[in-house]
Amino acid sequence: MKLITERPLAVVLLSGGMDSAVCAAIAQDQGFELAALHLNYGQRTESRELTAFNNLCKFYHIKQTLITNIDHLAQIGGSSLTDKNIQVVGTDFKQASIPNSYVPFRNANILAIATSWAEVISASAIFIGAIEQDSSGYPDCRKTFFEAFEKTIELGTKPETKIIIFTPLIDLTKKEVVETGYKLNVPFELTWSCYTDSDAACGECDSCLLRLRGFEAASISDPIIYK
Amino acid sequence: MKLITERPLAVVLLSGGMDSAVCAAIAQDQGFELAALHLNYGQRTESRELTAFNNLCKFYHIKQTLITNIDHLAQIGGSSLTDKNIQVVGTDFKQASIPNSYVPFRNANILAIATSWAEVISASAIFIGAIEQDSSGYPDCRKTFFEAFEKTIELGTKPETKIIIFTPLIDLTKKEVVETGYKLNVPFELTWSCYTDSDAACGECDSCLLRLRGFEAASISDPIIYK
Repeated sequence: MKLITERPLAVVLLSGGMDSAVCAAIAQDQGFELAALHLNYGQRTESRELTAFNNLCKFYHIKQTLITNIDHLAQIGGSSLTDKNIQVVGTDFKQASIPNSYVPFRNANILAIATSWAEVISASAIFIGAIEQDSSGYPDCRKTFFEAFEKTIELGTKPETKIIIFTPLIDLTKKEVVETGYKLNVPFELTWSCYTDSDAACGECDSCLLRLRGFEAASISDPIIYK
Repeated sequence: MKLITERPLAVVLLSGGMDSAVCAAIAQDQGFELAALHLNYGQRTESRELTAFNNLCKFYHIKQTLITNIDHLAQIGGSSLTDKNIQVVGTDFKQASIPNSYVPFRNANILAIATSWAEVISASAIFIGAIEQDSSGYPDCRKTFFEAFEKTIELGTKPETKIIIFTPLIDLTKKEVVETGYKLNVPFELTWSCYTDSDAACGECDSCLLRLRGFEAASISDPIIYK
């Protein structure tokens, strides 16, 4: 007799960055079938991130994908990631204020879409690779925010819908993200983290600096090309 | 001496329907300066609703407007309002199940956008014309959902950002919505509530039935044209 067990389905937020790739690897390792969600929000690196997304979907044999535009975040502006009039600047990690790469309430927009999709395809989980410590103070990257959003899902979806938000990287340092990904054989060479749009990563923006420090601290070499 | 007092700014969700128009009238009556947000989500009545929105913005002299597409709700499907393979059916209001015009987690998507915009333009309030009793059991039209979302806003935006969600119609019957709008001189003739897309309202869909019953109960005549 052949025993067929169906794996539970999880929507994974897959930007194409290193964190999202590690997050997908963790979800798969935990026994979930993956459905990958990618959002274009008018960011400078839109096409480069999409390439990374497609390559990661192939690598992980992900069958269900949703790529969608959230134009309003670019229309609304207010962030250096979407507003071309605001220059991307390096962040002083000791400063208390929110850096200008913050897209207002971005993760809530992303989770709302993920939840709508999850409810339709009967996914029981959403995986998002947010990291509280490395998030430069973005308020929508904090554990308390995700807990509040999960409560909102419980109250705002059908009674039979049960969706849990997993943030497996939330308490990790970037070093631990790299180490976790390394153990799970994440194809780091397929990922893209840089905030600028070019063939080689800049090595200077917030995201590159965080990534490079993570690899350095883990004593692992980053396989992507830097300028 | 001339005293200049700046009115607080509120983002008003303005679909173009009767409820949203009454909601805008209430916000203005409460002393708010209005900023109007309209969303196209691939609904059948997209262009008709946009016309109603534009006419209402002119009527209320609204200076700041944001019209944006939320394509993903149509891509995700799962609702008769956005999925053309699902027929719009009348709802038996006594039934317990969610009607098929329910767009999964729609209000969370809408509120996430409203919050992002509100944070950027420094609005201190969001007005949404949801009605719990008339909402045909949509889970994201309930007071508890909005309370949970407000908590999510508090935790997911900058510390200095304070945004309150106002749902002034939440406890009203459709009769009371009509009466309130009538008192506030809402231009009902500019609004559009029907779920089908035509020159005259169908008078048969959920939304038309609710509207017509409201006018009838209030003994006020509905100025729009029905088939």
